[in-house]
Amino acid sequence: MGVQETATRRGGRDARRSVRMAPNLEMLPALKYGVPVVEPMNEEQVERIHQASLAILEDVGVVFRDPIALDDWKCAGADVRDDRVHLDRGLVMELISSIPPHITYHARNPAKNVELGGKDAIFVPMTGAPYLRDLEDVRRGPTIADLGTFHKLAHMMPALHSSAHHIVEPMDIVVAHRHLHITYSSMKYSDKIFMGMTTSPRNAEDVLDMCAILFGADFLETHCVVTGNCNGNSPLVWDQVMLGAMRAFNRRNQPVLCSPFVLGGANTPASTAPAVAQLNAEALSALAYTQVVRKGCPAIYGHYLSTVSMQSGAPMAGTPEISLMNFMIGQMARRYNIPWRTSNLLGGAKIFDAQAGYESAMTMMAVLMSGANYIWHSAGWNEAGMHCSIAKFVVDAEVCAMGYRMAEGIRWDDFEEALAAVRDVGPGGHYLGHPHTQANFQRAFFMPKLFDNNSIEQWKSDGSRDIKERALSQAKRLLNEYEEPKLDPAKDEELRAYIDRRSREIPAVDALNDQY
Amino acid sequence: MGVQETATRRGGRDARRSVRMAPNLEMLPALKYGVPVVEPMNEEQVERIHQASLAILEDVGVVFRDPIALDDWKCAGADVRDDRVHLDRGLVMELISSIPPHITYHARNPAKNVELGGKDAIFVPMTGAPYLRDLEDVRRGPTIADLGTFHKLAHMMPALHSSAHHIVEPMDIVVAHRHLHITYSSMKYSDKIFMGMTTSPRNAEDVLDMCAILFGADFLETHCVVTGNCNGNSPLVWDQVMLGAMRAFNRRNQPVLCSPFVLGGANTPASTAPAVAQLNAEALSALAYTQVVRKGCPAIYGHYLSTVSMQSGAPMAGTPEISLMNFMIGQMARRYNIPWRTSNLLGGAKIFDAQAGYESAMTMMAVLMSGANYIWHSAGWNEAGMHCSIAKFVVDAEVCAMGYRMAEGIRWDDFEEALAAVRDVGPGGHYLGHPHTQANFQRAFFMPKLFDNNSIEQWKSDGSRDIKERALSQAKRLLNEYEEPKLDPAKDEELRAYIDRRSREIPAVDALNDQY
Repeated sequence: MGVQETATRRGGRDARRSVRMAPNLEMLPALKYGVPVVEPMNEEQVERIHQASLAILEDVGVVFRDPIALDDWKCAGADVRDDRVHLDRGLVMELISSIPPHITYHARNPAKNVELGGKDAIFVPMTGAPYLRDLEDVRRGPTIADLGTFHKLAHMMPALHSSAHHIVEPMDIVVAHRHLHITYSSMKYSDKIFMGMTTSPRNAEDVLDMCAILFGADFLETHCVVTGNCNGNSPLVWDQVMLGAMRAFNRRNQPVLCSPFVLGGANTPASTAPAVAQLNAEALSALAYTQVVRKGCPAIYGHYLSTVSMQSGAPMAGTPEISLMNFMIGQMARRYNIPWRTSNLLGGAKIFDAQAGYESAMTMMAVLMSGANYIWHSAGWNEAGMHCSIAKFVVDAEVCAMGYRMAEGIRWDDFEEALAAVRDVGPGGHYLGHPHTQANFQRAFFMPKLFDNNSIEQWKSDGSRDIKERALSQAKRLLNEYEEPKLDPAKDEELRAYIDRRSREIPAVDALNDQY
Repeated sequence: MGVQETATRRGGRDARRSVRMAPNLEMLPALKYGVPVVEPMNEEQVERIHQASLAILEDVGVVFRDPIALDDWKCAGADVRDDRVHLDRGLVMELISSIPPHITYHARNPAKNVELGGKDAIFVPMTGAPYLRDLEDVRRGPTIADLGTFHKLAHMMPALHSSAHHIVEPMDIVVAHRHLHITYSSMKYSDKIFMGMTTSPRNAEDVLDMCAILFGADFLETHCVVTGNCNGNSPLVWDQVMLGAMRAFNRRNQPVLCSPFVLGGANTPASTAPAVAQLNAEALSALAYTQVVRKGCPAIYGHYLSTVSMQSGAPMAGTPEISLMNFMIGQMARRYNIPWRTSNLLGGAKIFDAQAGYESAMTMMAVLMSGANYIWHSAGWNEAGMHCSIAKFVVDAEVCAMGYRMAEGIRWDDFEEALAAVRDVGPGGHYLGHPHTQANFQRAFFMPKLFDNNSIEQWKSDGSRDIKERALSQAKRLLNEYEEPKLDPAKDEELRAYIDRRSREIPAVDALNDQY
């Protein structure tokens, strides 16, 4: 084989690979579960958790470290002793009954609106990483430009339904102004839905003001456009910063994830069922409070789940107990008919090695079998959330697309037609050339772009690259082909003016929550 | 901090790690599922597949490329036209009704007997790899010594219930004699159950003769001690070699996995539900034949599943359609009340990278949610089965232990006691020192040995090793600590004498099935 021929063959293969790797950027609609959920508890066991949670709320109570919340609870008729609120079961159940079971999220591009709750679910990227692994896999502190990179990638990945907010922490922006620039980046680089910072009540107000600029203040009153998150301090404490931010969101009728933060064995009992009973009590207390703030406001049953290594104290991911707790929490949220959030594709690996793959996939499969609705941290998470990896981000997004396809369930629309093909082909034949195959293969079997299934010889001739290297190439290609979904110029100007004004008003002190 | 102090701290950490990594070698009993299975088909859809399969068996028929089988079928009353057997639905259902729904497998160490069928499941290592990645991660042709290494590791991993047979192909043994040495290695290095070669009818007889030496010929008549595998040639063909080996097993009352070999889209329709209908027809035809050979003989509903890349023709693993087909096949096997086999922890990665982790874990989670009984290829599989990796073998075995823990379900035995701990600890407290935690943490949360959840600083000070390197260290440690479960000397001598005699009798021609 001469040089010419080699070049042609090589060129042909490269061209085919180029087409194969070409991004399909159309966002998938919200996932509609077509596969039944895993429910390891019978009705009596669900009731047992429920009653245990209500007893905790009544007898132990929940600490709200916030004078406004304590006043609100007194007005609502709760038994408040110092900062501890004892919640009568009747009151709790009455309050949560006004939470809408379903949410329609509105994006600035209406084609990217998504449904949430019941059988409808969305994938949202990870957030909050203090480090990133960049396009060269270097672990370093992130900048606002890096955050933009992630928002662009989130925009381009079909199975991601949101650009989230601070996927990585932009360390080059002073802390006190960070929420403004994070929000702008989420809005600017993607026309999907996004999340809103809850780092302080005032920061939350800024986020909501910016949402009002983008969507109109009246629109917010009747439409969901942003999601906040409020972490609990388990066991059984909600703090002032989180509660204040929650109120800011709720007053504008925007939902918050009410997220007990479980480090199983450290801040919950060392046992899955009792840990879920405590978590459920915590979630119910915050969910109930959203309805004290504004009756009928949407709210999402949340949690962050890890188990703790009793050897080192480190949080663990992908463990069997996390899967079981996800199944159980799904059952509880459905008992209350409230949309619920969990965390996806978690892991503790320091690099994007096989550990990361196992942990992430175990997490995702359990999450999808749990029937979760708001599926957060769905791309990029590694090192227990300490870094977001660009390579893992694009692979996770593809893995979400695989999970999406599985969770959609079975297609039956070509069943009889395909059985006719079985008769046509007969024993010992093959289907590759059959018209049914020709007509259906594109949709029949998921073909991942980043998973190499070639022979070792082909893989070697392609450069012997591991999935991390292939993913980084793909990320570079995506960023190269990125097209910004331009903001309306008038709104863009107004948003920039808002950021300028607030940046002048807020002292540039570099500490979190200093402006509270 | 002086040199002395550093050394002490370092030594202390190493000592702690040494204890932490110390192997627990006690085999887990057969998994008893405590979590419900995922059943994406309703009763009507199960019936639709069932009826479609019966129609295929009646109208299209199945080719048995084997004169003995064709005679057997004629005697059994089937409609045989040339080599094609048309199976009446009444005949099929009558025949499979005598397959026992449950199997007790007997190991040479009775403490390692395992149950199979219904809610009982076992994990079996991968087999058949023509290459290995060795203790230095070098990809090369395996020897009989390498096979012994895998049998030793299988013996030591708690979640593996079997030493299988030719985990890797021992290339240094002439093909015609290989089955003798493989069987001996399975029997010698582990006292768990094992598998038997079905590379020809005569080879299968040799395996069963060796089983008769180990257990006694009469014992085999009434007890299961070995498992064979018969792959189908989809679509709808069973060949002479496989059928002959199957008969050898069945005549001695030993079970065979009746395994259609699905390359979805190539040898089945490009659609999940019709592919399952064809596979189900194929499995039923072989299962029915086992009962023609010996009524009441145990048999296992099998299959190998992959989907085919329509870009390259390569088989894929971990894809959403494979998960869905596993769920569906589980439903079909349960409809017939027959134990069933699937494949676990599959993948197409060429190295032990994140791709391998994702694919393997997605496969395992789907398999466990399918309620599979005989869970084959549960350790070491990579590169679409072209190599068995020692590193992946030990990690997969740990991942099986994690899956096992999840599939066992929820413990409720300490529920009230742990709720009392919630009252003791109260809002804002912590559980680490509570007596309930002290008493329960060891069993509460799975603590993987090979998954690193430490901080990046600790990980760096431990050598910045990826999971592959950690796994290879652990494998070396395990092999160093391996203790052979000695065969009874008289039986050992008889086995060796049998191998010597047969090696003299069988011409050492280096081609598969030449002695058939």
